[in-house]
Amino acid sequence: MTEPLRLGIAGLGTVGAGVVKIVRQKAALLAERSGRPVTISAVTARNRDKDRGVPLTDYAWEDDAVTLATRDDVDVFVELMGGSDGPAKAATEAALAAGKDVVTANKAMLAHHGQALAQLAEDNGAVLRFEAAVAGGIPVIKALTEGLAGNDITRVMGVMNGTCNYILTRMESGGLSYQQAFEEADKLGYLEADPELDVGGIDAGHKLSLLAAIAYGTQVAFDAVELEGIGKVSIDDIRQAADMGYKIKLLGVCRMTGRGLEQRMAPCLVPATSPLGQLDGGTNMVVIEGDQVGQIVMRGAGAGEGPTASAVMGDVLDIARGTRLSTFGQPASSLKPVTAARVATPAPYYLRMALVDKPGALAKVATALGDAGISINRMRQYDHASDAAPVLIVTHKTTRSALDVALGAMAGTGVVAGDPVALRIERV
Amino acid sequence: MTEPLRLGIAGLGTVGAGVVKIVRQKAALLAERSGRPVTISAVTARNRDKDRGVPLTDYAWEDDAVTLATRDDVDVFVELMGGSDGPAKAATEAALAAGKDVVTANKAMLAHHGQALAQLAEDNGAVLRFEAAVAGGIPVIKALTEGLAGNDITRVMGVMNGTCNYILTRMESGGLSYQQAFEEADKLGYLEADPELDVGGIDAGHKLSLLAAIAYGTQVAFDAVELEGIGKVSIDDIRQAADMGYKIKLLGVCRMTGRGLEQRMAPCLVPATSPLGQLDGGTNMVVIEGDQVGQIVMRGAGAGEGPTASAVMGDVLDIARGTRLSTFGQPASSLKPVTAARVATPAPYYLRMALVDKPGALAKVATALGDAGISINRMRQYDHASDAAPVLIVTHKTTRSALDVALGAMAGTGVVAGDPVALRIERV
Repeated sequence: MTEPLRLGIAGLGTVGAGVVKIVRQKAALLAERSGRPVTISAVTARNRDKDRGVPLTDYAWEDDAVTLATRDDVDVFVELMGGSDGPAKAATEAALAAGKDVVTANKAMLAHHGQALAQLAEDNGAVLRFEAAVAGGIPVIKALTEGLAGNDITRVMGVMNGTCNYILTRMESGGLSYQQAFEEADKLGYLEADPELDVGGIDAGHKLSLLAAIAYGTQVAFDAVELEGIGKVSIDDIRQAADMGYKIKLLGVCRMTGRGLEQRMAPCLVPATSPLGQLDGGTNMVVIEGDQVGQIVMRGAGAGEGPTASAVMGDVLDIARGTRLSTFGQPASSLKPVTAARVATPAPYYLRMALVDKPGALAKVATALGDAGISINRMRQYDHASDAAPVLIVTHKTTRSALDVALGAMAGTGVVAGDPVALRIERV
Repeated sequence: MTEPLRLGIAGLGTVGAGVVKIVRQKAALLAERSGRPVTISAVTARNRDKDRGVPLTDYAWEDDAVTLATRDDVDVFVELMGGSDGPAKAATEAALAAGKDVVTANKAMLAHHGQALAQLAEDNGAVLRFEAAVAGGIPVIKALTEGLAGNDITRVMGVMNGTCNYILTRMESGGLSYQQAFEEADKLGYLEADPELDVGGIDAGHKLSLLAAIAYGTQVAFDAVELEGIGKVSIDDIRQAADMGYKIKLLGVCRMTGRGLEQRMAPCLVPATSPLGQLDGGTNMVVIEGDQVGQIVMRGAGAGEGPTASAVMGDVLDIARGTRLSTFGQPASSLKPVTAARVATPAPYYLRMALVDKPGALAKVATALGDAGISINRMRQYDHASDAAPVLIVTHKTTRSALDVALGAMAGTGVVAGDPVALRIERV
């Protein structure tokens, strides 16, 4: 048996405790599979005294993550603290600078500093892996970086925030308003301390930006992700969509076009019978499309102790087995800066609006669409008690910019009450 | 740029030609991702003169696969000839004995000789990879061997023969008999030269035995797979199953139990709303369950030029990147011999039979079940014109051996016409 691989673990929340449990309980299995023992040298967390349901006395305790990360008896720094900056980043940088490998679940840190950290890893001959940062237990980073490396990737899509999918699923299944479903998720502890990270699409946008970097050999460009949260999705939209055979999902989509990289995280309509449409509750799904492989769909738990710890251990065992990969699948220095393209790939759109109840109102809306070159696929006006008539329009394929022109023109007509809802219908 | 990785490709059918195309058309992408150029030194196939839609004049031609596999200018032998023995095996052995890495799509060879070949690879410091052998383009070998290596695997399931799934789907969607759907698949060229490989479950059973070896650290034991083909599934079964909310799939299931390794490839009922139930046509799906990760579902094309070549290239690029893994995820010498357990994990069963139309017939069947300790969940007897009454029974959870006792007792009653159909209902 060769030398053990020695971990230093920073962050002992749910995931950190889960990793400690696996290392303790599966020592024989891990050694058999990786060819060497996996051990823990030291740990750190904010609160030393908290009971985490797993004994920690076998390991050295450090109060400071940077000190932990650079200990002589740590081969791999396992970063599970979270936060895009602060101690997580400082300790990750210290570990990489010391030539130590890093395994992290920190999507925010990589979304904001991925390029610099990948370059730092490369400069120091260290490996930086992050399977747990995207889609929890689904080994999608591995599939995209390695298994599908013989493909030109044509599109990556993902439902990667379980909380949003839970809220949307509950709105549909329970007939709840957005606010009611949000409160239910909050009571269940599903929401981040800053809920906007979830419902604003930020967390899922972080993940999408990492997938895009691997898929297209580009520098991580989270700032170029078009973000739209689920806060404006109403129970009406969900019902109308269902009525037409669609479900509404917070869907991330990225693709490389002639104009640049499109990255968008927004509520979209997808066919109810598609794998994405059938994804209920907190489960995640990532769809990878390649020119050779066609469509690969991967589904699994996107969060939680076991699934996230499983992903961390996958990375740890890769390192134990001697696998040395570039962070984003190719040398950091070869990753191209992103030319960000506003999402322009044509698609049909779903529009819902309230029309002031007077003659010619509908004609004005139809004219605004027609003038922008947008043709109508389906339209329904519903019976109504109030002053404003609910109108639903599904367009034929159009661009978002043409749609924005039409929406601008509609606003000028004075017949549309409030802001129309416009959701892309993604072909899946 | 470091030294190129030089391939020798044996077999230039659809997949072999697909691999040549990728290497030619994506040279820059492959070099960028793997850090070194990937080139082809030599090729071989049965017929030198056939037009394969891709130029081969840049490569040396060998008439003999063994000669090709051991050429000095070949680093990786890519075996795409097929056949469990004969030239494919001889050339693979020659390559490994010469310390050359091997990438193969040959499930039959590995199902029959996996242990010996893995040992040979290990003895010679060579790598033997086979992503393309299981579920086509789905990177499931990688997910199971690497991404999920931190889990104790609790169950692996798969629909891994696209032809069978096509036949079952067409029976349902077109109301076709098994024979009609079989002939349709034959006309479309979906069937192997020996159709029993497909419809008898042999091909899918090969794949299951490879997954089981990785999941449980056991020696490949194809002979211990309980095989049952789809030939006995009738349109009546498909309709009855649908009526109760199920679909019939040729499903492989393996799990380790206290009695040993259960491996079974057989038609099963799965809930129509589950991912497996919703899998139509030639698509494949593999479900991996681990104690940490929960359930991971992977779906994609199970065959065809692009998907299979994608899987081959994934293995080639791993080798180009310097990844060195044991064939089945741990040293060949540490793989345990299989104690084969007849499938005994309790499950509900679906039974369909024809009862002779006389008083007391149903009571005799019910008694046979009750005497074997099997309780009935649902039962239906249908209106009938003929002498025999169609009867449908869904049992509560029971073991296959208890069921066999009951079926034996039923046969002795003289009231059951012909052989009852008994299909396991798999919880998914």
